[in-house]
Amino acid sequence: MTGQPIRILIANVNTTASMTETIRAQAAAYASPGTEVIGLTPAFGAESVEGNFESYLAAVAVMDAVVRYDGPYDAVIQAGYGEHGREGLQELLDVPVVDITEAAAQMAMLVGRSYSVVTTLDRAVPQIEDRLKLAGLLDRCASVRASGLSVLELEKDPDRAVEAIVEQALTAVEGDRAEVICLGCGGMAGLDRRIKEATGVPVVDGVAAAVTLAESLVRLGLTTSKVRTYATPRPKVITGWPITRAGENS
Amino acid sequence: MTGQPIRILIANVNTTASMTETIRAQAAAYASPGTEVIGLTPAFGAESVEGNFESYLAAVAVMDAVVRYDGPYDAVIQAGYGEHGREGLQELLDVPVVDITEAAAQMAMLVGRSYSVVTTLDRAVPQIEDRLKLAGLLDRCASVRASGLSVLELEKDPDRAVEAIVEQALTAVEGDRAEVICLGCGGMAGLDRRIKEATGVPVVDGVAAAVTLAESLVRLGLTTSKVRTYATPRPKVITGWPITRAGENS
Amino acid sequence: MTGQPIRILIANVNTTASMTETIRAQAAAYASPGTEVIGLTPAFGAESVEGNFESYLAAVAVMDAVVRYDGPYDAVIQAGYGEHGREGLQELLDVPVVDITEAAAQMAMLVGRSYSVVTTLDRAVPQIEDRLKLAGLLDRCASVRASGLSVLELEKDPDRAVEAIVEQALTAVEGDRAEVICLGCGGMAGLDRRIKEATGVPVVDGVAAAVTLAESLVRLGLTTSKVRTYATPRPKVITGWPITRAGENS
Amino acid sequence: MTGQPIRILIANVNTTASMTETIRAQAAAYASPGTEVIGLTPAFGAESVEGNFESYLAAVAVMDAVVRYDGPYDAVIQAGYGEHGREGLQELLDVPVVDITEAAAQMAMLVGRSYSVVTTLDRAVPQIEDRLKLAGLLDRCASVRASGLSVLELEKDPDRAVEAIVEQALTAVEGDRAEVICLGCGGMAGLDRRIKEATGVPVVDGVAAAVTLAESLVRLGLTTSKVRTYATPRPKVITGWPITRAGENS
Amino acid sequence: MTGQPIRILIANVNTTASMTETIRAQAAAYASPGTEVIGLTPAFGAESVEGNFESYLAAVAVMDAVVRYDGPYDAVIQAGYGEHGREGLQELLDVPVVDITEAAAQMAMLVGRSYSVVTTLDRAVPQIEDRLKLAGLLDRCASVRASGLSVLELEKDPDRAVEAIVEQALTAVEGDRAEVICLGCGGMAGLDRRIKEATGVPVVDGVAAAVTLAESLVRLGLTTSKVRTYATPRPKVITGWPITRAGENS
Amino acid sequence: MTGQPIRILIANVNTTASMTETIRAQAAAYASPGTEVIGLTPAFGAESVEGNFESYLAAVAVMDAVVRYDGPYDAVIQAGYGEHGREGLQELLDVPVVDITEAAAQMAMLVGRSYSVVTTLDRAVPQIEDRLKLAGLLDRCASVRASGLSVLELEKDPDRAVEAIVEQALTAVEGDRAEVICLGCGGMAGLDRRIKEATGVPVVDGVAAAVTLAESLVRLGLTTSKVRTYATPRPKVITGWPITRAGENS
Repeated sequence: MTGQPIRILIANVNTTASMTETIRAQAAAYASPGTEVIGLTPAFGAESVEGNFESYLAAVAVMDAVVRYDGPYDAVIQAGYGEHGREGLQELLDVPVVDITEAAAQMAMLVGRSYSVVTTLDRAVPQIEDRLKLAGLLDRCASVRASGLSVLELEKDPDRAVEAIVEQALTAVEGDRAEVICLGCGGMAGLDRRIKEATGVPVVDGVAAAVTLAESLVRLGLTTSKVRTYATPRPKVITGWPITRAGENS
Repeated sequence: MTGQPIRILIANVNTTASMTETIRAQAAAYASPGTEVIGLTPAFGAESVEGNFESYLAAVAVMDAVVRYDGPYDAVIQAGYGEHGREGLQELLDVPVVDITEAAAQMAMLVGRSYSVVTTLDRAVPQIEDRLKLAGLLDRCASVRASGLSVLELEKDPDRAVEAIVEQALTAVEGDRAEVICLGCGGMAGLDRRIKEATGVPVVDGVAAAVTLAESLVRLGLTTSKVRTYATPRPKVITGWPITRAGENS
Repeated sequence: MTGQPIRILIANVNTTASMTETIRAQAAAYASPGTEVIGLTPAFGAESVEGNFESYLAAVAVMDAVVRYDGPYDAVIQAGYGEHGREGLQELLDVPVVDITEAAAQMAMLVGRSYSVVTTLDRAVPQIEDRLKLAGLLDRCASVRASGLSVLELEKDPDRAVEAIVEQALTAVEGDRAEVICLGCGGMAGLDRRIKEATGVPVVDGVAAAVTLAESLVRLGLTTSKVRTYATPRPKVITGWPITRAGENS
Repeated sequence: MTGQPIRILIANVNTTASMTETIRAQAAAYASPGTEVIGLTPAFGAESVEGNFESYLAAVAVMDAVVRYDGPYDAVIQAGYGEHGREGLQELLDVPVVDITEAAAQMAMLVGRSYSVVTTLDRAVPQIEDRLKLAGLLDRCASVRASGLSVLELEKDPDRAVEAIVEQALTAVEGDRAEVICLGCGGMAGLDRRIKEATGVPVVDGVAAAVTLAESLVRLGLTTSKVRTYATPRPKVITGWPITRAGENS
Repeated sequence: MTGQPIRILIANVNTTASMTETIRAQAAAYASPGTEVIGLTPAFGAESVEGNFESYLAAVAVMDAVVRYDGPYDAVIQAGYGEHGREGLQELLDVPVVDITEAAAQMAMLVGRSYSVVTTLDRAVPQIEDRLKLAGLLDRCASVRASGLSVLELEKDPDRAVEAIVEQALTAVEGDRAEVICLGCGGMAGLDRRIKEATGVPVVDGVAAAVTLAESLVRLGLTTSKVRTYATPRPKVITGWPITRAGENS
Repeated sequence: MTGQPIRILIANVNTTASMTETIRAQAAAYASPGTEVIGLTPAFGAESVEGNFESYLAAVAVMDAVVRYDGPYDAVIQAGYGEHGREGLQELLDVPVVDITEAAAQMAMLVGRSYSVVTTLDRAVPQIEDRLKLAGLLDRCASVRASGLSVLELEKDPDRAVEAIVEQALTAVEGDRAEVICLGCGGMAGLDRRIKEATGVPVVDGVAAAVTLAESLVRLGLTTSKVRTYATPRPKVITGWPITRAGENS
């Protein structure tokens, strides 16, 4: 609607700063001209998030990083695939919050009747299914499949990653009848083109999808509904919050 | 990604040209700078679409209008709320096709846990529910409610429309626990602000939502998956197609 | 209830007149003594319907053919498997309308706990699933499977058709745990006996099922509810309807 | 298909012989010319079945009555609304078995988008819902409502019954958005016309519906699938079966 | 809560008294110190229950045995996997009634995200699925699988039973993604340890689970809700009940 | 199985130590003789948990408190109603983890066909629904209702709490057709008796239910499945964990 530049915070869920930069760059590549994308790295938590314990920790660490960020911004992206925490951010903020898991699924549903997610480890599968179920986006999900590579292995060896992802993607398309593939890990940003070539179906990267949705929400003037589920927290005594105090790590 | 301007066709589902212009203008208002929006009016069908017979006719009339359009375009929006036909367009075209029913629901789900649709007549309710069910977007739909006003009444008397919509929207928020309202008729474009003021919850207009999603898909380089459901029609004898022949009405 | 003969219109969804006659004859073979079955062929559309574009066209072409038919009739059967349009006919008519997709599923559910559909091409599968979902009959559907043969191939080579259908039917019974097979194409009429022999489970032909259900509705005095979803279309300006004008093709 | 007369057993679920006769007559009234309808009354159980204990007893008593019946028959109807037992009969018999709960729902789904059941007592509601859920027919059920009258009260005072049923039926149509009403008790046979007049929507009587479906199955040559769920019981020692011995009551 | 000993009736569903004793002993082994477990054998029905006919008979035979038992008791366990009848007992009694099918599923859901049931014959699978569906416990059920052994074969050859169960359990864990295995037959009591060793996942025996749940309900002072579904049967004429008369078999 | 005493940790989700003691005492009151119950209070977080932000914080604070506890224990209870975190504990521990939300629902399902939860504030409703959905226990949930009282108001004025809960419980029983009421807040422990008296239906307190389930799991020898979803976290660098360091608050 307006010509003013949009500022988007994109929060990595793990503490590996190089990943934050990869994710930020991927978002920036798909952002509109003039949109500024700022990467945030949590001050505590796992170097790579795999499983519920680390994911819950990340949920709090992302909230911690966002509330401590003191610049202006128009939207927040949580760049973890299948991770906890989006609802908490929505309570704390008025600006829109977009989770890459949901962003990818939404875009996939616009270009195919069913989609599959190819993620990292087998243990990530149930979490992603649960997040999609709560998001009301599981109905057209054909399957969530694991490539068997951990987040760090993915980052270290992109060729092996492509191979492992393509294998699962082809099984999803032929066996599970998926028509679109979502890349189920923030760290897969940038692999979409090669996987699309190998499978012949559209491939959605969640970070890229999320940045266009975040911009869309800002342009539409839509902010999080505060009427019930995401109402601002009530005033009360909260001990030890934010977790990271001034002068501490970060 | 690129600096080149995007061209979006937006197809009205009824034959009332003034509505095509309203819808086109609404889309253009939310489009990015440089995006061109072209309105299409079907050459046959109902002056306003209410019910399955008219909607099936519109599905074919929209396909007829789109295949006869000979300029270039990057995406198509079908601007009927709860109408048939999106899957047919997806088979005929490679570029993305966005239905305003689904676009509104997707945006709503990003800013609230549940949404309600407020539409025109009671008879439109089941159709909208069915389209959302097939789209896999019904899970977080709190209700679809009818304002009791027909499409043409809506257009004639916007004040009465706002009043009737607000009444249903408030019932949706308080009784059905909706946290966002979707305006369930292409002809409601432009009423969102007043309804948001009256209800205090985000209000999503499908046309505006669709234009941002269409642009997003183009920027992401995503096109309709051709692997199964939306594969290009097989070559065969088709009699009387397109319906509208050269030199005929339109 | 009464001794008067029943007249049933059965509408083919494609423009191949020989198929209309096959379907009509199949219906007549299962009709009660005294029931008259009249076949209708659409005046426009595909020679064989496979996919959404052709199916939407067929929906309108069937409505066009039915509204132009000027004899008396007591019920209408739409003889396309998984095709669009039944709801439109229900709005236009007071007499009962039976879709063969639903008729087959209902009969199957009376003689087994779960059923599978064996249809033509892979691309038909999602459409059939969607129609069964909207009809509320998907819950006990074990699977929809494609024989890989097109509608016209089926008609040309019944022996090859039987072989391909039996292969999928056996997989459905053993792998998907189906207990009944529905023949998922109007053009499969007459193959039921051979497939039953080969699989050992009941095999339901939709056309045969539909004619008994249409007669049942007439005998029970049941007509389409006009209270909401299938209410008669409201009076309004409709351009170019019916599509086929006097003196034109047909 | 053939001209030979069909013989249908219709089993009352309670021990009140006058009800058996009412049900039998209702079935006969909707049967084709030449079809013979034979009523069966259980030799033990409740005078009217209301609740699970009595319903389980009826399930066994109906099986007991059917296996002791030594004449020929082509199909069996179980004339209890929401009662247990149909699956047991399907194991014991090869001929088709039709439950009036399911028959009514199927017919209702052919003439409206959603249906409600109006039954006797509040305690019958969950049982009917459960039976429809297992039958895969709950998806389009708008509601199951209780008139508050017991089975015996219904039979004694039909005028009061009509009044109480109409009240619930109108609430179902207006509040629950039902488009068809199913009469949820074998003892409501014959009330359909008056309730249709009062509500303006189609009203389905399960007994009438079941007799047309049973005839349809016979004409289509369909018998219960024996491949898994309804396979014939394996040979084994069964003590005290049938329950009713020669020379005993009945 | 109290120091008084709890008395639990555990009803076998078949007439094989040795199985009653096995089941009773298994229950006693997991009962708290001081809890007394009393085994009941039905006076009529199948020597082993496999299928709906035999299961309905068992439902009535178990109710018959329980109402004829004249000692005091605090809870009842129905020890048939996937069998009918629990709701009838709940109407007849005030004390809690626990079905081993549901008890096993509940315990499994506490220690894993999804569970599979390994049962006896293929024909038992649909019944177990149906009972879990009605119990609202099917959502996290990954699969119900048949070992292919009948109830009596299981009892005769425990080694072969373990082997057959382990094979299915491993397929469930690896292929169906189950995280816990439920032993789907009362006669499998005592095999849990060996199957756990072979599969590495928790294995739940329904009888053991049920006895701890029955004790829990008693300690919590919870009894069956009498407000609607499980209300006490209304006073009325019931012929031939109980089935087993004084002086007869049993 | 054994005579050795069981030790159960019960973790309060908020930082109000007096509530920890109330919850611990309630658990101890329902524990078996010899069972020891140890209460844990988080070292950081909200004084009362209401909403997602506070709940995510509590999830991490409970994990933090449990991993820092260095005594032996056999099971852990998380005593927050509808709160996040249970899956994280299940990854970190081998012993069983029981959430009071699920414990209450399971017990309720054993004594009635449907249950309602009465909780504190309206904003807690969606969270409880979501947790029950993920737990696979929502199917038989008739409704989740808010009393309108905050956690602290509940604790301060039990009489007003009972009144507000009874009002919602009666609406649940009569309007939503609930047959059992679950008290949806750890702080409602001890109110069950008065609410049962006022409503006439069984009332389940989650803390009491959880302690019996935790004991049951221990007696059955069941521990959390480590095969996939709740596998132990992989070894990796985790910064700032546990959150609470030696010598800090707590």
